Amino acid sequence: MKVGGKHTRSIWYDTTAQEVRIIDQRWLPHEFRIVPLITRSDFAAAIRDMWVRGAPLIGATAAYGMAQAMIDDPSDANLNTTYDALHATRPTAINLRWALDLMRSLLAPLPTTDRATTAFAKAAVICDEDVECNRMIGVHGLKIIQQIAATKPAGDPVRLLTHCNAGWLATVDWGTATSPMYHAQQAGIPIHVFVDETRPRNQGALLTAWELGEHGISHDLIVDNAGGHLMQRGEVDMVIVGTDRTTATGDVCNKIGTYLKALAAQDNGVPFYVALPSPTIDWTVRDGLAEIPIEERDGREVTHVQGKLADGTTGEAQISPDSTPARNPAFDVTPARLVTGLITEAGVAEASEKGLSQMFPR
Amino acid sequence: MKVGGKHTRSIWYDTTAQEVRIIDQRWLPHEFRIVPLITRSDFAAAIRDMWVRGAPLIGATAAYGMAQAMIDDPSDANLNTTYDALHATRPTAINLRWALDLMRSLLAPLPTTDRATTAFAKAAVICDEDVECNRMIGVHGLKIIQQIAATKPAGDPVRLLTHCNAGWLATVDWGTATSPMYHAQQAGIPIHVFVDETRPRNQGALLTAWELGEHGISHDLIVDNAGGHLMQRGEVDMVIVGTDRTTATGDVCNKIGTYLKALAAQDNGVPFYVALPSPTIDWTVRDGLAEIPIEERDGREVTHVQGKLADGTTGEAQISPDSTPARNPAFDVTPARLVTGLITEAGVAEASEKGLSQMFPR
Repeated sequence: MKVGGKHTRSIWYDTTAQEVRIIDQRWLPHEFRIVPLITRSDFAAAIRDMWVRGAPLIGATAAYGMAQAMIDDPSDANLNTTYDALHATRPTAINLRWALDLMRSLLAPLPTTDRATTAFAKAAVICDEDVECNRMIGVHGLKIIQQIAATKPAGDPVRLLTHCNAGWLATVDWGTATSPMYHAQQAGIPIHVFVDETRPRNQGALLTAWELGEHGISHDLIVDNAGGHLMQRGEVDMVIVGTDRTTATGDVCNKIGTYLKALAAQDNGVPFYVALPSPTIDWTVRDGLAEIPIEERDGREVTHVQGKLADGTTGEAQISPDSTPARNPAFDVTPARLVTGLITEAGVAEASEKGLSQMFPR
Repeated sequence: MKVGGKHTRSIWYDTTAQEVRIIDQRWLPHEFRIVPLITRSDFAAAIRDMWVRGAPLIGATAAYGMAQAMIDDPSDANLNTTYDALHATRPTAINLRWALDLMRSLLAPLPTTDRATTAFAKAAVICDEDVECNRMIGVHGLKIIQQIAATKPAGDPVRLLTHCNAGWLATVDWGTATSPMYHAQQAGIPIHVFVDETRPRNQGALLTAWELGEHGISHDLIVDNAGGHLMQRGEVDMVIVGTDRTTATGDVCNKIGTYLKALAAQDNGVPFYVALPSPTIDWTVRDGLAEIPIEERDGREVTHVQGKLADGTTGEAQISPDSTPARNPAFDVTPARLVTGLITEAGVAEASEKGLSQMFPR
């Protein structure tokens, strides 16, 4: 999507410089830095140290990492070494493993002389497929926004609320939850987005607010506490969030705090939608609450808040006493009963086993 | 309650130094500063600039401010000037007006020679009455905690969750929501408290975590997003919060985000209690959502987080892009249907017109 008025993806191959480039997201929103990834250790660091984040983008970065390695040394040994090195960066990331497996199984049977060219072509396809998947999520989500707009006086904005960053920065382009927003803007439907800051890591404030601002979409940053109040006051027409994992029965695992917004949406008759590419459906899990383990992260993310200091540098503000202990669960599970619909690349499914299995017959 | 092992109130008259002293709460939790209030402008600054906060404590500070003024100059002119000067500090604070009216109507009929002595005695009574009111909230709340403890294996803590700071720092002593916690500790009932940080101003992280830590009560700081997840996982036995205003029908206006926790409590069968001194019941309001205006504060509280920086100084970290707009509603209304009970100084009332009018016949 747009940055400074210019269309940008989160990762791309620069044909002039003949190198892979990414947005180094660690510096957002205060600095917009594009960096090249050249050596294997560049790619490994980009994934491990979260220069890039978001499952689709991690997969795309790994695919390009394999391709770049095939230029340097297309041997079987280097294919395997690169696989291992990249896989070790974030071993629990499903998309990372998926992309590496795909690349290795494609490249291993080929003569070494063909590997680099094939690998770069495949990495580009992986990126384009992600973009197309997210574009289709936007096409289907747009219809819902259009329906809401049709119930309002002309010119009144459709007011959406989102949590965390399920934006184009987490994918190659469009994003998931944001794709319907960008499509609405292109279709000339006025929208306004309430952006949850999304403590503890503030991805809403750091990334979603930046994305929307760069793209010229009207928005307000709010604290995570405020969404319920806005829904009570009739100021939200629709909630739309992303997801890390959706169960076969439609339970949605997403960033901590999503569940609270789903409760408020239900209590106030506000439709609550989840945008997801179908590969994030985990068909092996039926009961999200009972079966999905929730990562507990370092309490320091709770006790210290990162941001831009008065002198312009990035630093931390400690909000609690020195010795305060903290708990930091990173995700929660929103039961399917609270979800109005699942916006996928194939259409909008009911959040249920029936709805998902009808849309994605197996 | 205790600070560094020593019992402390939030305001007191030091008989040796013959001066009123307070905890200057602006520096908490990183510094514990006791300051004397001597001149009228000291008292005015303490209220206006939030060295003290919380309705009961503001009232007590104003009462002592009137008393101190009567030492300096017990004339009618000074009585009125002081009234006006203190009232202007936070003109919408109900308790401020109440305390000032009480003091002036008591002092005005007296000979000037008697005014200072009477005023100091009355200010002390106002403080003691606040302490007693909060103590009784604790006595009644303790029974609920005892009942929960009786259902658990011996030694297993009763796990509470609270939002914002309804602690002794907002009153003269004991606090409201915290009073049952301190009473449980004194009764030897093991408890553990999950403390919502309470964005945007982080009163939970800054004040409640500090209070509980100083008093040796087991606790964990959590982000406001986490409480729903903890309730889903069965890790919370009871929610207890304070309130700024309760309607005649039991709707509860409290710090933004309270409503979301009430929804999660209901969804998971966790009892949700509100602790309040009966003077905070507004008998003129019946529909909290429709009738209570909600203050919208400066968006800078959302975009900037205050805390202790790496060099030990207090400063701000900006979490969003420079131009990000923000909405900042400061309170929300929890409908009575979500409230298990109202813990008052007179006992635990049902959150309904019937429950409140039976407990407080008018």
